Amino acid sequence: MFELQIKIPASMAGGYKVIIGTDILGSLWQTIERDYPKLNKFVVTDENLSSSGWLAKLTGEVNIPAFIIAPAGEISKNINTVISIIESMEKAYLGRDTLVVALGGGTVGDIAGFAASIFKRGVPVLHIPTTTIAQADSAIGGKTGVDSSLSKNAFGTFWHPVGVYIDVSALATLDERQFRAGLVESVKHTIIADGEYFNWFESNLNSILEQNPVVLEQLAMRNCKIKGRVVEADPYEKNQRRMLNYGHTIGHAVEAASGFKLLHGEAVAIGIIGACLIELELKLAKNDKLERIRGLLKKIGVPVTLPGNLDDKIVMELIKHDKKAVNKWPRFALTTEIGQVYSPGGQYAVEVNPELVGKILKRLR
Amino acid sequence: MFELQIKIPASMAGGYKVIIGTDILGSLWQTIERDYPKLNKFVVTDENLSSSGWLAKLTGEVNIPAFIIAPAGEISKNINTVISIIESMEKAYLGRDTLVVALGGGTVGDIAGFAASIFKRGVPVLHIPTTTIAQADSAIGGKTGVDSSLSKNAFGTFWHPVGVYIDVSALATLDERQFRAGLVESVKHTIIADGEYFNWFESNLNSILEQNPVVLEQLAMRNCKIKGRVVEADPYEKNQRRMLNYGHTIGHAVEAASGFKLLHGEAVAIGIIGACLIELELKLAKNDKLERIRGLLKKIGVPVTLPGNLDDKIVMELIKHDKKAVNKWPRFALTTEIGQVYSPGGQYAVEVNPELVGKILKRLR
Repeated sequence: MFELQIKIPASMAGGYKVIIGTDILGSLWQTIERDYPKLNKFVVTDENLSSSGWLAKLTGEVNIPAFIIAPAGEISKNINTVISIIESMEKAYLGRDTLVVALGGGTVGDIAGFAASIFKRGVPVLHIPTTTIAQADSAIGGKTGVDSSLSKNAFGTFWHPVGVYIDVSALATLDERQFRAGLVESVKHTIIADGEYFNWFESNLNSILEQNPVVLEQLAMRNCKIKGRVVEADPYEKNQRRMLNYGHTIGHAVEAASGFKLLHGEAVAIGIIGACLIELELKLAKNDKLERIRGLLKKIGVPVTLPGNLDDKIVMELIKHDKKAVNKWPRFALTTEIGQVYSPGGQYAVEVNPELVGKILKRLR
Repeated sequence: MFELQIKIPASMAGGYKVIIGTDILGSLWQTIERDYPKLNKFVVTDENLSSSGWLAKLTGEVNIPAFIIAPAGEISKNINTVISIIESMEKAYLGRDTLVVALGGGTVGDIAGFAASIFKRGVPVLHIPTTTIAQADSAIGGKTGVDSSLSKNAFGTFWHPVGVYIDVSALATLDERQFRAGLVESVKHTIIADGEYFNWFESNLNSILEQNPVVLEQLAMRNCKIKGRVVEADPYEKNQRRMLNYGHTIGHAVEAASGFKLLHGEAVAIGIIGACLIELELKLAKNDKLERIRGLLKKIGVPVTLPGNLDDKIVMELIKHDKKAVNKWPRFALTTEIGQVYSPGGQYAVEVNPELVGKILKRLR
């Protein structure tokens, strides 16, 4: 009988730059070629960004192999799309010396990041997020994933990008509903991390909705700072990072239960109100906080109650399948004041009785 | 315009234990439960190990959710098997608090390790390798992967196990051909790292082929030490680790070109002779080294020439698709003396002209 110890040294500490600007897409490819001269490039985007001319705007006259996700949206966020991407990279004879450039919203980023992380044991990815939700949230943090037939992000990895380039003028490609739904992740950031930012958001809501570029750049910067700070402290979601899940435990279940008719941000808005109701019930927060948050979400124009046709039982079943579930029930991220996350004993995800959650779902009507 | 820097701290340095023994499988489950009391367990194995009673021997009377890969072997090493595993984990309501236990050969380990690495952004895996090849090579080192329709390991990750338990008595479940083919990875270790080990291997070949448990434990130990040392120095294959690829660049292509009729070790044996012929041609090594290696491989009973029906052009095309290819052509790991890897300027993978490789393929008949 023998025993041997194998040591795995810590992988190199790294980091990446986030650039935020207006009308920068047209000159980005030059920057990418300058920064990564030795890597072959492969673009992943979707049919919306291709047909709106943004893909051409990015790559210019250069002929770059690209995969265009069609149809755009959650419906394509599954393992089959990832298989198609990887096979098209193989057909282009791409090897480990490839940089995947993800141009698009959260869905494109999640799919492209996941494909990059599993292509020949991993190649670098660079994100160019084009939606409110991706610019505020998903492009930063290294989470990737695609859905199975049973739950969201059943397949996924942690795969940090080598860079994130945000052009706020890309938000003009969104329809009004998508633009507004994406703002919910910003509201989440204010609630978990920064009361002053909540005030700023309330005061600047009109400029945000009018897509004033100066305000949109500030919005992106504030989001990336908060998200970046949390991710730096806990890149692989051992604890603190769980606060980012605020509103998402109920939100993800509601999104799936609606058959993805609700947009992610819309479902999270309902989930945030759900979290506020739990906080009220647990006497962690007062009613005026709930009312202020509900007021802001209503002004943004996202739902704050469950659609009538949604079955509570299905929502409860989907919560059990949450990827963070331990013993078939997930923990919840909660807050006290606006800007103050609740972390008893240093734990950023706390137990909430399933019966209480069932009761809250009824109060979300 | 804003710019922000996000730091990703090095992930925690870690390590894992390799235990080598004879007839230890029956008591292993107790050890696993003691070492990981808080994690749910999920076993991945194949129909051979299930029908031979080894799965039952491992888990005993306890009812553990398991996925049994069928048919066993390379034919199941694809993304569809991984999808089935992940969906069956979801159906068992497993979350991130799951330990995947991989019981089987290299194929089971590669599939189970890959599934663990992408299930809900990654859960730990523990390997119980049962074949010569897995005990010598694949269970150590954290490489996972499954094949696409175009090439081997097109999908994969680096995912280090939390532990490796080797029971050499499991080798009795192999048929003679598999047992012998698996020894080729041991021969590879001797050539790249340890001339004394090559001598030991030659002297003890009869005891190895008779499956003397004392000698088999020593064999496993020597392999794990060499593999472990290389992996510790370069866990994510930036340079030194490439030496482990000795014989594999031609080997992988030959394996695929044979439609996987050749076993991995058999194809690598041909690839090792190919590497020796390249070394001769480049005047890195002398003919007596080639003859000594060829003699040993012949005694093991693996092929040392290309099968007559194999098309050189297909082999060349498959080499271009090698996952380590840069600009559509991979670099080769080469050696000088037995036990001495060739690393000009500190590089462990070197350029070899495609024309030369084409010529070598003709000489491999």
